[in-house]
Amino acid sequence: MKLATLNDGTRDGQLIVVARDLKSAVVADGIAASLQRALDDWAFIAPQLDTLSRQLNDGKARRTFEFDPRRCMAPLPRAYQWAECSAYLHHVELLRKAEGGEMPASFRRQPPTVQGASDDLLGPTDDIVVANEAWGIDFAAQLAAVTDDVPMGATPDDAYQRIRLLMLANGVSLRHLLQDELVRGCGAFRSRPATAFSPVAVTPDELGEAWQDAKVHLPLRASWNGRLVGQPHVGKDMTFNFAQLIAHAASTRRLRTGTILGTGPVSNKDAKKGYSCIAEKRILETIAEGKPVTAFMAFGDTVRIEMLDADGKSVFGAIDQTVRPTGYVPPAPEVAVEKTE
Amino acid sequence: MKLATLNDGTRDGQLIVVARDLKSAVVADGIAASLQRALDDWAFIAPQLDTLSRQLNDGKARRTFEFDPRRCMAPLPRAYQWAECSAYLHHVELLRKAEGGEMPASFRRQPPTVQGASDDLLGPTDDIVVANEAWGIDFAAQLAAVTDDVPMGATPDDAYQRIRLLMLANGVSLRHLLQDELVRGCGAFRSRPATAFSPVAVTPDELGEAWQDAKVHLPLRASWNGRLVGQPHVGKDMTFNFAQLIAHAASTRRLRTGTILGTGPVSNKDAKKGYSCIAEKRILETIAEGKPVTAFMAFGDTVRIEMLDADGKSVFGAIDQTVRPTGYVPPAPEVAVEKTE
Repeated sequence: MKLATLNDGTRDGQLIVVARDLKSAVVADGIAASLQRALDDWAFIAPQLDTLSRQLNDGKARRTFEFDPRRCMAPLPRAYQWAECSAYLHHVELLRKAEGGEMPASFRRQPPTVQGASDDLLGPTDDIVVANEAWGIDFAAQLAAVTDDVPMGATPDDAYQRIRLLMLANGVSLRHLLQDELVRGCGAFRSRPATAFSPVAVTPDELGEAWQDAKVHLPLRASWNGRLVGQPHVGKDMTFNFAQLIAHAASTRRLRTGTILGTGPVSNKDAKKGYSCIAEKRILETIAEGKPVTAFMAFGDTVRIEMLDADGKSVFGAIDQTVRPTGYVPPAPEVAVEKTE
Repeated sequence: MKLATLNDGTRDGQLIVVARDLKSAVVADGIAASLQRALDDWAFIAPQLDTLSRQLNDGKARRTFEFDPRRCMAPLPRAYQWAECSAYLHHVELLRKAEGGEMPASFRRQPPTVQGASDDLLGPTDDIVVANEAWGIDFAAQLAAVTDDVPMGATPDDAYQRIRLLMLANGVSLRHLLQDELVRGCGAFRSRPATAFSPVAVTPDELGEAWQDAKVHLPLRASWNGRLVGQPHVGKDMTFNFAQLIAHAASTRRLRTGTILGTGPVSNKDAKKGYSCIAEKRILETIAEGKPVTAFMAFGDTVRIEMLDADGKSVFGAIDQTVRPTGYVPPAPEVAVEKTE
């Protein structure tokens, strides 16, 4: 099934069930008010949502309405945990190489995982608000999994059973601040503003054959200012699958339901597949030409992230964001003034 | 007022108002089911809680019961954000010195802040569960503030107005894993198991004169296996006050209500005041004797963290935890068997 959160003015929004074709939706009000509430009692709630989802897809649901991603918050507008992993190690290898270093060998056993802020997760069309254009604004097109409770020390097989939902994510980072923070040795904090998510979260079964070995076997499209810059295959070159990422995250502590783990920017070894974050493009330029050529994002720039299935249909709906300065006020729409004489 | 969360078997527990002397409490059921719910609508809810608190302290509340910290969860058993700062820079300086390095100059402008996990926050008497005793189990006695919504770019003066509650925290870390993680350059993740909090969260006015300049001017007591090892003065040698810590955390993104920021281990320059984390003791030993002598915590060890006011009364109740291996089962209590003949 496909789930989304409607912006109804509350902090957690209203849980809705969305049709497979993303054209219509129905409020899940009588079942669970919010997605977190559904996750809190998934074994009891999910079958009820599933029934509603079947009715909707069969055209038998009542009080349906047109689905509009612009009315969506993040599926979880605030969550109890968000962490971004680096599931594509050759990307990390490139990055370290460009910095003149080497990737620590431990990365092959333990996927690099960065704790992120989860108090403010953005909806798919929310602006990326940044105070300073010179901070090196970058996107990071990736996949994310939402887990149920995961016990400490869970094996990858255990962890696999705890994957509840998949989403797309845009892990925005401020690359120039990140460099400073890495030198300081405290991890990323200021360099990680709010992360955005796709309009829709889907249960893995929605992916059919494309969900194999805890990986999604479809390309992820990233467009920057309307130009397609990346379409790497998510399942290819993914060093750690979701089961391994979750098991690693739970290696020293349990994870509670609603935990979101991202793969980090999707990246294929084949450079013709393009890039999911500008940093990767700049690394390739640095290796080839000695210095980066492509600039980071500017105010007014847009980024669109979407995944199409084998039939060319959008699975999660699109993340479609614009970079804006703090305090940006959109221009008033032009109003046709009728002249009365 | 003083607030706590009763373990009623639910994920968020039941909000209760606790008497100033920590002896009695009353359920805030008709006002807000959970502390997060109260924070979500603080301007509306807080006055109601305050009225109940006055009734309780005046002996006029109905259906009160004995307050028992062992029945408490963390005031926020799960939160949308937890970050541990390093407000005591001379502690960081010592640490870097022991490692043979120097503290980055930027630390004087920007307090080091580490994003933590907030999906699983422990109650005051919950066990510290660790899989491996050799991971370097350390406590970190500190103060924490809970904020309301804070806009991006808030000044320290703005931030000061957003401080809603104060708590004690035990920021447990696995020091040997932390060393590995710092080398990897991804910040702390595996080295940070669940953080524990005091039974009670208090509004700053409860501290009276001891709340000055966004600092708490009282000593924080830490006892390890029943022996008092630290009683540093929290307000002394604190490089950044809470208003500055919050403003820094909000410098590139807004913070949403219920965000928890910790000071990091409290530390005074006067070494006679003892230590709030074992790492500091080991640093002093390394500087004095060339190597650390004191070992980290072992299974069965206890740590107790408490703050007494000028009259010797506990302000927040005590954090009192025992380190246990994964899967530890407490021995069955001895049952007196009556012989019938």
